[in-house]
Amino acid sequence: MVDEAALLVTLDLAGIFVFAISGGLVAVRKNLDVFGVIVLAGATGLGGGFLRDVLIGATPPAALLDVRYLMVPVVAGVATFVFHPTLGRMERVVNVFDAAGLGLFCVTGALKALEYGLPPAPAALMGMVTGIGGGILRDLLAGRVPVVFSSELYATPALAGGAWAVFAQQQGLPVGLVTLPGVALCFGWRVLAIFRNWKAPIPRGPASV
Amino acid sequence: MVDEAALLVTLDLAGIFVFAISGGLVAVRKNLDVFGVIVLAGATGLGGGFLRDVLIGATPPAALLDVRYLMVPVVAGVATFVFHPTLGRMERVVNVFDAAGLGLFCVTGALKALEYGLPPAPAALMGMVTGIGGGILRDLLAGRVPVVFSSELYATPALAGGAWAVFAQQQGLPVGLVTLPGVALCFGWRVLAIFRNWKAPIPRGPASV
Amino acid sequence: MVDEAALLVTLDLAGIFVFAISGGLVAVRKNLDVFGVIVLAGATGLGGGFLRDVLIGATPPAALLDVRYLMVPVVAGVATFVFHPTLGRMERVVNVFDAAGLGLFCVTGALKALEYGLPPAPAALMGMVTGIGGGILRDLLAGRVPVVFSSELYATPALAGGAWAVFAQQQGLPVGLVTLPGVALCFGWRVLAIFRNWKAPIPRGPASV
Repeated sequence: MVDEAALLVTLDLAGIFVFAISGGLVAVRKNLDVFGVIVLAGATGLGGGFLRDVLIGATPPAALLDVRYLMVPVVAGVATFVFHPTLGRMERVVNVFDAAGLGLFCVTGALKALEYGLPPAPAALMGMVTGIGGGILRDLLAGRVPVVFSSELYATPALAGGAWAVFAQQQGLPVGLVTLPGVALCFGWRVLAIFRNWKAPIPRGPASV
Repeated sequence: MVDEAALLVTLDLAGIFVFAISGGLVAVRKNLDVFGVIVLAGATGLGGGFLRDVLIGATPPAALLDVRYLMVPVVAGVATFVFHPTLGRMERVVNVFDAAGLGLFCVTGALKALEYGLPPAPAALMGMVTGIGGGILRDLLAGRVPVVFSSELYATPALAGGAWAVFAQQQGLPVGLVTLPGVALCFGWRVLAIFRNWKAPIPRGPASV
Repeated sequence: MVDEAALLVTLDLAGIFVFAISGGLVAVRKNLDVFGVIVLAGATGLGGGFLRDVLIGATPPAALLDVRYLMVPVVAGVATFVFHPTLGRMERVVNVFDAAGLGLFCVTGALKALEYGLPPAPAALMGMVTGIGGGILRDLLAGRVPVVFSSELYATPALAGGAWAVFAQQQGLPVGLVTLPGVALCFGWRVLAIFRNWKAPIPRGPASV
């Protein structure tokens, strides 16, 4: 049990770190100052989990009770501020890390929602919200339309990963089979979408206004 | 009692449906893909109620405990994706439905806030927040200034409808007299504002910077 | 004890008033109607406290249980609507009042977070969130990138003021020494940043994409 909890916290912190870097890079490109970079890194890394925790009634969010959750985005923000020329050249690598963060968050988010008594379908949805919430907040704060809404597959892999975790947990599978295939499903789908440039269908015909 | 509850749920679901269609239409006009249309439909339909529930401490929101609340915006989103050329030509009809959704939400939102112990004035305000919250979220996510802030009467009818519901409930009137005149007041005012192009006063003189 | 509580409420209401005026001025410059001005004044004045209360689990927020908290932004909004030419010419004065609001909110926000059981570092952070949340919400609703992210020192003084309040409270200092130096630290730093045009460091080199 302790092992499971420690595993989930470690996965969570890793997801926060990679999301925070993606937020820091957006801030650097907007020419924000060092504090703006840290705040945007923090909002991106923690936003999805905060949104989930507020919606499921798990307040204060774990991230406000455990200082490690606050230190991780600060470190990521400062690292991005200092090393951004290198990080910026590694856009593809950052996108792969971002896909890994998405995979981690959709699974941990869905499991936490189940724990707080949500039924299966809303719990899977909360997994998706945990995964995409930070990026949506990052884009709103940076003054751009959230990229999750542009025609690139992002939300759907997160929903699929969360759905797997919920299904497997409901079947009583061991924690490894609950988490790993869910993370792999979301991560693999997302990485393939990035590299093969997959798109979801867009509306047919003119938008009629 | 069961009848009242069933009535409120039905009204709520109807309001979510029409709001979700308005969100879906905005998404189609932004050329989002099918998942973006569903997500924006869901955010528009459920956003106001989520905001109210989070503020009054009613978490998890009812919509996360009852799968019907999630199915309605999915159906509305898919319907908008498929039938948008027809729906887009019926802009006026959609606006009238949107006014109906506003009327329903301001009343159900105010009553729920009362039930959670809010005093009369804040409860009426929560009715307004329930009514306008989804549209504000829709516009933020779509990258435009919320239309509720442009000079078209939108928030005020919602506040008036919520205020009626609170007042009537405090007087112990039967449920029909609590809900119907409130919905009619908000709906009628809003529809007249649309068709007569009513505006609220704007600031006099230059904005001075 | 009663005195302390009354003092904190008075400081809170004063902070809400000045923030609401800054929100009202942004609304006037966007040419919003009278209701838009009041709504934006209210969102700016109350947004930071709402965000803090939702995150720390203090729902419903105090502002929804005490009608004075709702009256203050309405009065500020109407005053801004009527007197905006005068207020707009006093931009510097308004900025100084805004700095005062920031100083008040970062201290009261941090103390409330402590009271709800948050550890020191997250409590100081909640002070900052209380101070900057309303302005961020104002800018999002008005369709501009939050000014707190532009390279002007805003969030850091708020974090410093909150950190002082937390530290002093933990040391058991009397309420005057908990609040006044914290408010003065944030207010003084912010005012100096305005008048001396201080900037925080921005990223070196090109943004690399």
